Amino acid sequence: MKYSSKTLQKAVEAMSSLPSIGQKSALRLVLHLADNQGEKKQRLIESLSGLINDLKICEVCHSYADTSVCDICSDPVRNKNIICVVDSVKDVMAIENTQQYSGVYHILGGVISPLEGIGPEDLHIESLKNRVLSGNVEELIMAISPSIEGDTTIYYISKLLDGKAKISTIARGVSFGGELEYADEITLGRSIHSRTDYNKELSI
Amino acid sequence: MKYSSKTLQKAVEAMSSLPSIGQKSALRLVLHLADNQGEKKQRLIESLSGLINDLKICEVCHSYADTSVCDICSDPVRNKNIICVVDSVKDVMAIENTQQYSGVYHILGGVISPLEGIGPEDLHIESLKNRVLSGNVEELIMAISPSIEGDTTIYYISKLLDGKAKISTIARGVSFGGELEYADEITLGRSIHSRTDYNKELSI
Repeated sequence: MKYSSKTLQKAVEAMSSLPSIGQKSALRLVLHLADNQGEKKQRLIESLSGLINDLKICEVCHSYADTSVCDICSDPVRNKNIICVVDSVKDVMAIENTQQYSGVYHILGGVISPLEGIGPEDLHIESLKNRVLSGNVEELIMAISPSIEGDTTIYYISKLLDGKAKISTIARGVSFGGELEYADEITLGRSIHSRTDYNKELSI
Repeated sequence: MKYSSKTLQKAVEAMSSLPSIGQKSALRLVLHLADNQGEKKQRLIESLSGLINDLKICEVCHSYADTSVCDICSDPVRNKNIICVVDSVKDVMAIENTQQYSGVYHILGGVISPLEGIGPEDLHIESLKNRVLSGNVEELIMAISPSIEGDTTIYYISKLLDGKAKISTIARGVSFGGELEYADEITLGRSIHSRTDYNKELSI
């Protein structure tokens, strides 16, 4: 494609390097910004510059933070005795979105995967152990995507902590609105195995 | 949604203000940028800053440009005697993408629409007239989206120029791969009315 301006072309190329944004979408976004008055562009640029200059990693949970400790870890209302262990920051956002959890998080930064050469030492497992050993942690909720690698990671952590905190996993089963006939056999098998007392479920 | 960092939150909000980017997509894009090393972020920010600082409007065709005249208007290979008249910069890009056109462009910046209060004086029609009167323009190709407003605009320009240049419109008809039974009656009626000599079409 021939552009009438190299500035435009560079912006489209940079925009289309983002995931799931093709050249047509990138062009539409860039033209939208070019057509708009300065304020919106300025706000986008400032906020993206913030990602370079201001974004830090929380010392406690390894999530993104503005200071050395993130807003969730420094929130006095949050229950510090329950730690939800997740793979990435995306999972923190997904769980926060449910508004069902008031504990804190620990981000592993991945799962153990020998095939991809990711071992326990590449993840934030040592710092999780230190949190458990140093504080009054009652429970670790393992909210890791169900997979062989995820299960290996949970098994490794449970062995490492050796009963120093209660370990639970999020419930796995048929999703709400899902059809039984299309559920895969592992999920369906697990959902029968981990069946819940109906009266107990109602009381939640 | 509760974010662990306000920097992150601001970036997501700015990103989701772009068209067709919802909060989930914005979060995915921002986390992608946050996870990546500085170079990609830096390039995106620099190119977006360019949209504020370096982007100009071409004096001749009103497209986006880096200098006072855009790359297309200043290209010596382009035929300056044929002007393709379009609604917006997006249309220039779409036509450039076909690689079938070697003339220059004129961007009106909209179409005449009394309902929306857009009259000829709000568009770049006066400068189009001046281009035709001052130069050796042989033909104006009206590449304006087919609609009542588009047709009104073409009619207005053809009356205004009063035979000072040949005026043509891009062919309207059934699109390639389209099914006759689903074509609307105006399109189908026009395509029968403007039928093309088969041998002539083959020779293109």
